[in-house]
Amino acid sequence: MSRPIVLLLSGPNLDLFGVRQPEVYGRETLDDYVAIAREAADAAGYDLEHLQSASEAELVAAVHGARDRCAGIVINAAAFTHYAWALHDALAAFAGPIVELHVSNPNGREPWRHTSVIAPVATGAVVGFRGDGYRMAVEGLVGILRRDEA
Amino acid sequence: MSRPIVLLLSGPNLDLFGVRQPEVYGRETLDDYVAIAREAADAAGYDLEHLQSASEAELVAAVHGARDRCAGIVINAAAFTHYAWALHDALAAFAGPIVELHVSNPNGREPWRHTSVIAPVATGAVVGFRGDGYRMAVEGLVGILRRDEA
Amino acid sequence: MSRPIVLLLSGPNLDLFGVRQPEVYGRETLDDYVAIAREAADAAGYDLEHLQSASEAELVAAVHGARDRCAGIVINAAAFTHYAWALHDALAAFAGPIVELHVSNPNGREPWRHTSVIAPVATGAVVGFRGDGYRMAVEGLVGILRRDEA
Amino acid sequence: MSRPIVLLLSGPNLDLFGVRQPEVYGRETLDDYVAIAREAADAAGYDLEHLQSASEAELVAAVHGARDRCAGIVINAAAFTHYAWALHDALAAFAGPIVELHVSNPNGREPWRHTSVIAPVATGAVVGFRGDGYRMAVEGLVGILRRDEA
Amino acid sequence: MSRPIVLLLSGPNLDLFGVRQPEVYGRETLDDYVAIAREAADAAGYDLEHLQSASEAELVAAVHGARDRCAGIVINAAAFTHYAWALHDALAAFAGPIVELHVSNPNGREPWRHTSVIAPVATGAVVGFRGDGYRMAVEGLVGILRRDEA
Amino acid sequence: MSRPIVLLLSGPNLDLFGVRQPEVYGRETLDDYVAIAREAADAAGYDLEHLQSASEAELVAAVHGARDRCAGIVINAAAFTHYAWALHDALAAFAGPIVELHVSNPNGREPWRHTSVIAPVATGAVVGFRGDGYRMAVEGLVGILRRDEA
Amino acid sequence: MSRPIVLLLSGPNLDLFGVRQPEVYGRETLDDYVAIAREAADAAGYDLEHLQSASEAELVAAVHGARDRCAGIVINAAAFTHYAWALHDALAAFAGPIVELHVSNPNGREPWRHTSVIAPVATGAVVGFRGDGYRMAVEGLVGILRRDEA
Amino acid sequence: MSRPIVLLLSGPNLDLFGVRQPEVYGRETLDDYVAIAREAADAAGYDLEHLQSASEAELVAAVHGARDRCAGIVINAAAFTHYAWALHDALAAFAGPIVELHVSNPNGREPWRHTSVIAPVATGAVVGFRGDGYRMAVEGLVGILRRDEA
Amino acid sequence: MSRPIVLLLSGPNLDLFGVRQPEVYGRETLDDYVAIAREAADAAGYDLEHLQSASEAELVAAVHGARDRCAGIVINAAAFTHYAWALHDALAAFAGPIVELHVSNPNGREPWRHTSVIAPVATGAVVGFRGDGYRMAVEGLVGILRRDEA
Amino acid sequence: MSRPIVLLLSGPNLDLFGVRQPEVYGRETLDDYVAIAREAADAAGYDLEHLQSASEAELVAAVHGARDRCAGIVINAAAFTHYAWALHDALAAFAGPIVELHVSNPNGREPWRHTSVIAPVATGAVVGFRGDGYRMAVEGLVGILRRDEA
Amino acid sequence: MSRPIVLLLSGPNLDLFGVRQPEVYGRETLDDYVAIAREAADAAGYDLEHLQSASEAELVAAVHGARDRCAGIVINAAAFTHYAWALHDALAAFAGPIVELHVSNPNGREPWRHTSVIAPVATGAVVGFRGDGYRMAVEGLVGILRRDEA
Amino acid sequence: MSRPIVLLLSGPNLDLFGVRQPEVYGRETLDDYVAIAREAADAAGYDLEHLQSASEAELVAAVHGARDRCAGIVINAAAFTHYAWALHDALAAFAGPIVELHVSNPNGREPWRHTSVIAPVATGAVVGFRGDGYRMAVEGLVGILRRDEA
Repeated sequence: MSRPIVLLLSGPNLDLFGVRQPEVYGRETLDDYVAIAREAADAAGYDLEHLQSASEAELVAAVHGARDRCAGIVINAAAFTHYAWALHDALAAFAGPIVELHVSNPNGREPWRHTSVIAPVATGAVVGFRGDGYRMAVEGLVGILRRDEA
Repeated sequence: MSRPIVLLLSGPNLDLFGVRQPEVYGRETLDDYVAIAREAADAAGYDLEHLQSASEAELVAAVHGARDRCAGIVINAAAFTHYAWALHDALAAFAGPIVELHVSNPNGREPWRHTSVIAPVATGAVVGFRGDGYRMAVEGLVGILRRDEA
Repeated sequence: MSRPIVLLLSGPNLDLFGVRQPEVYGRETLDDYVAIAREAADAAGYDLEHLQSASEAELVAAVHGARDRCAGIVINAAAFTHYAWALHDALAAFAGPIVELHVSNPNGREPWRHTSVIAPVATGAVVGFRGDGYRMAVEGLVGILRRDEA
Repeated sequence: MSRPIVLLLSGPNLDLFGVRQPEVYGRETLDDYVAIAREAADAAGYDLEHLQSASEAELVAAVHGARDRCAGIVINAAAFTHYAWALHDALAAFAGPIVELHVSNPNGREPWRHTSVIAPVATGAVVGFRGDGYRMAVEGLVGILRRDEA
Repeated sequence: MSRPIVLLLSGPNLDLFGVRQPEVYGRETLDDYVAIAREAADAAGYDLEHLQSASEAELVAAVHGARDRCAGIVINAAAFTHYAWALHDALAAFAGPIVELHVSNPNGREPWRHTSVIAPVATGAVVGFRGDGYRMAVEGLVGILRRDEA
Repeated sequence: MSRPIVLLLSGPNLDLFGVRQPEVYGRETLDDYVAIAREAADAAGYDLEHLQSASEAELVAAVHGARDRCAGIVINAAAFTHYAWALHDALAAFAGPIVELHVSNPNGREPWRHTSVIAPVATGAVVGFRGDGYRMAVEGLVGILRRDEA
Repeated sequence: MSRPIVLLLSGPNLDLFGVRQPEVYGRETLDDYVAIAREAADAAGYDLEHLQSASEAELVAAVHGARDRCAGIVINAAAFTHYAWALHDALAAFAGPIVELHVSNPNGREPWRHTSVIAPVATGAVVGFRGDGYRMAVEGLVGILRRDEA
Repeated sequence: MSRPIVLLLSGPNLDLFGVRQPEVYGRETLDDYVAIAREAADAAGYDLEHLQSASEAELVAAVHGARDRCAGIVINAAAFTHYAWALHDALAAFAGPIVELHVSNPNGREPWRHTSVIAPVATGAVVGFRGDGYRMAVEGLVGILRRDEA
Repeated sequence: MSRPIVLLLSGPNLDLFGVRQPEVYGRETLDDYVAIAREAADAAGYDLEHLQSASEAELVAAVHGARDRCAGIVINAAAFTHYAWALHDALAAFAGPIVELHVSNPNGREPWRHTSVIAPVATGAVVGFRGDGYRMAVEGLVGILRRDEA
Repeated sequence: MSRPIVLLLSGPNLDLFGVRQPEVYGRETLDDYVAIAREAADAAGYDLEHLQSASEAELVAAVHGARDRCAGIVINAAAFTHYAWALHDALAAFAGPIVELHVSNPNGREPWRHTSVIAPVATGAVVGFRGDGYRMAVEGLVGILRRDEA
Repeated sequence: MSRPIVLLLSGPNLDLFGVRQPEVYGRETLDDYVAIAREAADAAGYDLEHLQSASEAELVAAVHGARDRCAGIVINAAAFTHYAWALHDALAAFAGPIVELHVSNPNGREPWRHTSVIAPVATGAVVGFRGDGYRMAVEGLVGILRRDEA
Repeated sequence: MSRPIVLLLSGPNLDLFGVRQPEVYGRETLDDYVAIAREAADAAGYDLEHLQSASEAELVAAVHGARDRCAGIVINAAAFTHYAWALHDALAAFAGPIVELHVSNPNGREPWRHTSVIAPVATGAVVGFRGDGYRMAVEGLVGILRRDEA
């Protein structure tokens, strides 16, 4: 019997992790981060699917595709966090829990990064823990799923 | 001889009509709505083309493609209503009348839904009439076209 | 047996339709517009009552008088749209559907016309269709009434 | 010898008390509330006059008429609370004390209800006590009058 | 042959001139001010009509009645200056020149008095000259009328 | 059998009543005000407890201590009215009615005094009646308690 | 015996009157306007001094020089109207009356022209009367001077 | 040899966890939450100290006391999150990592809860995971400490 | 040996240059503009690549593709200038110089066009020179490249 | 006979002077600063009392205790400068002069440090002079006291 | 026959170019920059006049003097860019094209540098190209002049 | 050997000290204030130069002239404090310490006086000490100079 699925979504430019200024941001790539998340999901008995895209339409389609198929969503929307209301609407139509993820703290950056269109539809958020955040977000999502089942 | 064309555009997430919370929003799908619009267009002697997309680029291309080919545009831009300025610019370059359409009243929802980038380039708007709005918007557009011809 | 009633309300200065700059706004008078609305109501099996007033108190009284007597209200509140909160409160106490009507698009005019105190209590809105709007607003209201009955 | 007079003013839509959603707001009518106020005035040795109106002009005229004739004013301006600056100016020209009255707490409602044009010219305010508020406002006004005399 | 007419409009509470705090504002009444304006109009070959009202509807009606009948309007809108958009719309539909008049300087008072809905439709303004302002406003209006004729 | 309890809370600096500028604010001390409140409570069959503190923590503790023990709270939060959100949260967790009390009208003072963090959790408010306000607030609270019981 | 003096101040760019777009603004030069003002002053028994400058320092010096020497000031500060606070402070230290003058209505232009640093220190204002404004401003100033003397 | 210490700080009203509306917020008390955090700390080889207080001064003192003694801080500042700048300054002077913790999502509540004075000095944040959040926050903090050591 | 590359990016709707209102905007097409830019690049010893797209994702991908391959970027982001933060982030990760280009002055248009998400990551800007701007932007970029090399 | 007293108040976190980043802020402790202030007071014939506290309640109590006992107050309110309105109210009830003191310039730091609740009740301010500021503030206060006595 | 003239204007503090922090801003002086501009003008068949001033009055006079005498203006208004509305008005009265010039990008500096009073009257802008900008601005201006002639 | 120089700058209208309302502001003139400053400078071993001007250009020139010649600047910019950004830029290019000086507290006056363009470039500020402030500012500047030398 197939296992429940956690959908991990990565927004624009996150494919540059590990490539851009490695001496500053570390040498971990998005693949490394996804591997951390997958391991956490696997340990909890979940499969993990991942999509990275700079196309809001593709991310919206992925959220639609997750309806009635995935148990929950972890999303690091990157710059889309701050203006992609269509993504917000797609997430609002998803019945399961959603965890917002950022590897650094947007509140310590420019003012336009202090607003999140994901926050109003997110059950929880994990911010500022670099790669550890991927594990924490998946585990936190699983915790919510188990509490909801209980 | 071919009949004049009304272009109906549907923004992101509208493909979920009838699927998402049917007990609340009713069981009518986007196809049902498009059929209502098509019937109204047909009765007035117009063909109706429809495109639904979560890609701003596809909607912009559709508006470009309508130049010198379609008589007018009815657009329910959904979440794009509130930030898709490129769509605004494409519509601003369209010579014919444009009708903004919403099935419910965005003013009764979150503050960010009170701003419309479509409104400044729309000749008219039809808001809050559910499926009837599709018929009304097409008929209203036809009325404007006939008045302009007169 | 008497037919159900649609109340049409016209705010301040609308009695100048057709008189003021006819070369720009057309030669249709408020009477012409009311006739269009009445015809639409009649075709749908409704009577139409109309009141035009520059007195907020008279419009409030008309809304009160419509309670338990009229099926729905179509209102072009003109300048009252932007500040007449007493009219808002009166409409909020009316149980039936309310359609906000404007013959041109207030969003294309001065900023103070972008705020509507009618919108929060309106079920629907018809904006920018000149005389056609009166027919559309009545038909839209009738559609809501029938859907509510169904 | 005639007794001093307290003027009680009721703004637009307050004539709907007890009529509108009685299961929610209670079955007390404006007449009931006025009776409570009159009883409190009478007990303190004052006559009470009352005017309810949705016409700002009538309320302004009532305030003018109270000059040199009434000892104080209790006013529940309803929606006029939030924009009727002419009423504000009329009250500002009244020499006696003024008590602002609301049966529920406007701060718990829409943002536009958080601003009061009455507050800058009111000596006191009584908010949120339903019918009791009418008695409290009159007694409070009488207390101010007696303190001023002392 | 009848002389051209200047319409002088006075907003709410101006009937209290000379009555309210005469030791502060002087003992001149609104009648005195109107007499000054009439004298100035008469000297210039104009009749002067005057209306004072706390009813926005009456003032709107007076502006409508001046269409095609009066040469120009002088208006001291008092508190209506700051929110009476229906009066603004009525004035905007008047073809002749309009002079905004205030006997004291609203900019030296509360912030809400710094906004004028009359200003956008006024040709000129006369502010802060007490009774002299009535003469100046009429003379200024006449000057504009003569310049327009020239 | 013990009587129900009304808790009266006084915020920072209110211990200066009667001491600070007695020629302006009168010679009544906080003790005098508390006595007025106690008398009103006693007459209505309630005991009154009082705490004055400039420590938000002590006031929060007092509100916690009132849970399941006091029938209602009257609070003059003084400067805490404008920023003490922890006090707001404590009051929000109190099940009984809460009356906000001010002896003068904060709306007539500096802009920062126009915001109240107490208002969103208060059932009613009594503002501007000096010492009488203490009696009115207690009586108003008792009225709410009796209405809730009825 | 020398006559009292009215000081007329003209701000930056007003030396372009009559030169800049004469088909639009008319052919009257600043000299023509000053002549109108001087004639009005002379008729009232006053001398008129005039200074035009684009230097705020020169205008400040002129206001200082008017202390104890000139009876009043008429000032068309042009662009300085909107930011020259040093000029504001100089005028605030002048004991006599000050009349603010504009030949057109700044409220009908860009938003930054809606703020006046002159208004808070002006006794009166004359706005929008072209050349007539110079006569009206001087006469209005003289009226204030006579009223103050009386 | 003693183990490194994690300091857990709880702001005002958190002592009501489990007591206030248990049918809504669950029956877990603050003690339960602290136990979860302690278990996580213990598993990672850390001791955990905890302080709950409604006194900003006590929390500031606790942060001072942690200097050169504790390895990191987890803080659920509750209402202090939104205005306690002295707590912010104390945290800013702490050299180790700080994790901001909330059991529910403040962004889904009132606007004043959307601002955090803790965020600018926090390395990471864990939001919306109820009791799980305590474990996640401690584990996240430990992860940061280990990364910093590496 | 291959020459260094300048990447020219054109945002949404720019493919309408020369097609839309040629009597107003001139008959030059985007191809004409690109030819001007290519000629300037060629003269300076650079190759020029061009991409026009209404898809933010494609533009982001083009910027990623330019990393370590192109010497600099000239970008006319059109409507994306005002909200496409993902494009901003992509450009921020590009190491070479970036020149923002507009053929007309956005500051002379609607307020929403006054904000640029490109500006914070641009080294320089060329605004308002129509076709000449393409040549100037390329030459300016080359100048920066040479200065950086020097 | 006892000498007059200057009260020096230090707000939250100032006990960290000299301890926190001594290589940056210098090695002077709060005790050193207080000694400077005491020396200046002594030289001028005044005693100096000092209180440092992170408790707003303690600072409020200290200000109350200074009434009729201390000649003036010097206060470095640290973070309380920006939100402690209860402290503001306490200071407003103190009859003598008050000097606001900061060792560095808050205007060069975060925006929330640009607002001071102390400023409206302070006679003077000394900002940015490190330890010298303690001497200057005391001397300045003494100067005001002597001028007031003169 | 004399050649057409380009007027180059430099605002306050630009005389410090090359003097102030040469290790940062380079050793080029304003004279060097003017020479670059002059060379570009000469190559295009134009004479170049230059004025540097910290006096707004002198810059206004220079703009006036350019009327009917100079073909166009290049202006680096420095700090005047952000508040010198008199300079704005002078430029608005100049019939030829105007190019705004900045050697670095003001959008990357303090917020008050993001507003330009020059922009609304400028045909084009050249920003961020250091000395090259002087050549580009002159060439761009010449291009506009030639296009206008064509 | 010549002594180091302190430059004292006085902005517009300060030449009216002692002349304007001497019964209110005291009879001390600007000369008296400068003498106080000079005495303090002399006592510390510095020469003092002074310039008062209402011309921003002259003050800018004075700051330029102080480069490499004066040790520090004390500036009471009067109204220029609030908008003279060119003066700000000149001061920003001065290497030595700068002390902002005001004889009264601008925060107790109009809101536009609460913003200072001097503050961001000032090392320290002395506010509200009348004539004593001149001495304190010079001494404070000298203290900074000595600390910097140490």
